[in-house]
Amino acid sequence: MTPISQYGEFKLIEHITKAFPLFNPNTLKTIGDDAAVVKSEKDKVNVFSTDLLMEGVHFDLGYVPLKHLGYKAVTVNLSDIFAMNAVPYGITVGLAFSNRFPVEAIEELYEGVRAACSRYGVELLGGDTSSSRQGLVLAVTAYGSAPEEEIAYRNGAKANDLVCVTGDLGGAYAGFLVLEREKKTFLANPDLQPDLTFYDYVVGRQLKPESQPNILSKLREKGVKPTSMIDISDGLASELHHICGQSKCGVTIYADKLPIDYQTVSVAEEFNISPVTFALNGGEDYELLFTVDIGDFQKIKDIENVTIIGHITPDAGVLDIVLSPTQITPIEAQGFRHF
Amino acid sequence: MTPISQYGEFKLIEHITKAFPLFNPNTLKTIGDDAAVVKSEKDKVNVFSTDLLMEGVHFDLGYVPLKHLGYKAVTVNLSDIFAMNAVPYGITVGLAFSNRFPVEAIEELYEGVRAACSRYGVELLGGDTSSSRQGLVLAVTAYGSAPEEEIAYRNGAKANDLVCVTGDLGGAYAGFLVLEREKKTFLANPDLQPDLTFYDYVVGRQLKPESQPNILSKLREKGVKPTSMIDISDGLASELHHICGQSKCGVTIYADKLPIDYQTVSVAEEFNISPVTFALNGGEDYELLFTVDIGDFQKIKDIENVTIIGHITPDAGVLDIVLSPTQITPIEAQGFRHF
Repeated sequence: MTPISQYGEFKLIEHITKAFPLFNPNTLKTIGDDAAVVKSEKDKVNVFSTDLLMEGVHFDLGYVPLKHLGYKAVTVNLSDIFAMNAVPYGITVGLAFSNRFPVEAIEELYEGVRAACSRYGVELLGGDTSSSRQGLVLAVTAYGSAPEEEIAYRNGAKANDLVCVTGDLGGAYAGFLVLEREKKTFLANPDLQPDLTFYDYVVGRQLKPESQPNILSKLREKGVKPTSMIDISDGLASELHHICGQSKCGVTIYADKLPIDYQTVSVAEEFNISPVTFALNGGEDYELLFTVDIGDFQKIKDIENVTIIGHITPDAGVLDIVLSPTQITPIEAQGFRHF
Repeated sequence: MTPISQYGEFKLIEHITKAFPLFNPNTLKTIGDDAAVVKSEKDKVNVFSTDLLMEGVHFDLGYVPLKHLGYKAVTVNLSDIFAMNAVPYGITVGLAFSNRFPVEAIEELYEGVRAACSRYGVELLGGDTSSSRQGLVLAVTAYGSAPEEEIAYRNGAKANDLVCVTGDLGGAYAGFLVLEREKKTFLANPDLQPDLTFYDYVVGRQLKPESQPNILSKLREKGVKPTSMIDISDGLASELHHICGQSKCGVTIYADKLPIDYQTVSVAEEFNISPVTFALNGGEDYELLFTVDIGDFQKIKDIENVTIIGHITPDAGVLDIVLSPTQITPIEAQGFRHF
């Protein structure tokens, strides 16, 4: 293992970033100057989003591999750009870590960053590296662009719009519960190696979330513009409250329409929690929640990985979930409380 | 004092950011959606820069007021944008802090952020707020733009160019030494209140650095484009190495030309260190180091707060400082080693 002190900050950055290819001829400068330089795209608006990932709050290095952490840090951020119906261009990465980490650990983390950059075709534009007296800190800012008329805000939903989600929900939280349980088991008896074979899907959802930009492309192809959109980071319930709050409307969704993977259901049963609760309040799915005009029903009904889960109502602040034909309950926003 | 838990993340952000005015009609959306949205400027390139400020590494809350910290976090970042000869447009702020902080502390920090945003006319575009199990973390990303032909990289210096700096050097480090000394005195005897009257300038340089965009405007007015530019964050010596390394040239500077404030000189004497060492290796001055074609001498010689300290030579890798007519020494890059 190579101590960081053998490199120093500048050489470490050079060493780590030389493996990053450039994707776009508009990128004039990335690492190695005071700032990155990118040609701006004519007739487009720029979008920006920042996320922090803090050790002990957002991740536990006890079971999160560094490569996955790097990958997730990028995806989480790009998810915000996609949620504007924009196309991400590049990211900056601020990374702080203790000097107990060897160079190889940082390489592993950046392998994950690189894999995500390649997967989504975004540039590593720049960043900052610092030591940390505390835990590992990742601060990623993503930059993207879109024609102004394509931007989807949270405030455009209107009565009768269809409410849609991509992918499936609750899996990341199921994975989190499994990983926490296995960690406890392992700490109690280090000879028991965790077997996660039966949980591969939900553990993957937690450790290595993916965004679904291909669905946005399909919507564009079909001429559908979401009337509102948000990414599902804090749980469907919390995001529905954001959409309805900003759009001054209500919503009715149907529990039996919620897309939930069978593995998520099975974990929910193990933990004696309703899978619907996982889907509503689990968080970290990084799927997209969006609304479309009801006139677009024919255009979206057959898009793979898009599920219509309900509709917007004119009743501002009234958010309901239909659990059964006779049981309708208000949707409570729990979200993720850091403090 | 109001505990953060009384607000929660979303309300805290709303509470803190409502005081931020918008400066630019091109800003379509800031806080409150998945990402900020800004109209891009025609025929300009975008520039991006990220900096981390970590408690215990970059600042000591023992003597750094939160308001100053917020101000400095912004300035440090804008400094990188100015160093590209670009104009900053907006910032995103990632902030993580322990829930021991009351709301009032976060308000104070954001007052500093707001003061800096107003001072430099930049928007708070967005950000992220998280709790931290560890210390306070500030991650600021700045975004700006400029016509492509005006961007000043680090690699454009050429033989005979004049080497210039803005403002004066070494003051921030002098301030740092004074603050560290007073902290020790205070910890040893809490009844002794530190008297910083005689050190106001250097303490200000450390706690509340300012950028000098007006000098860049003057250069533009006079039709002078720096052939290379960098901001002085790690100390003049380190930055000269960056310029010469990337421009494949050498440099000769003159100790008696270095702009050093009398208070910096006086602190250097107290600590028995040469003021030239402060200027070369002190760091955190956030002044600009730039080179101009020798033909521009007449245009720049009378610009206030610009000092010509030497010239570029064709001898790649040969960096010298003339201490006296008979004493010439190589410039060693110490820089700031985090690890």
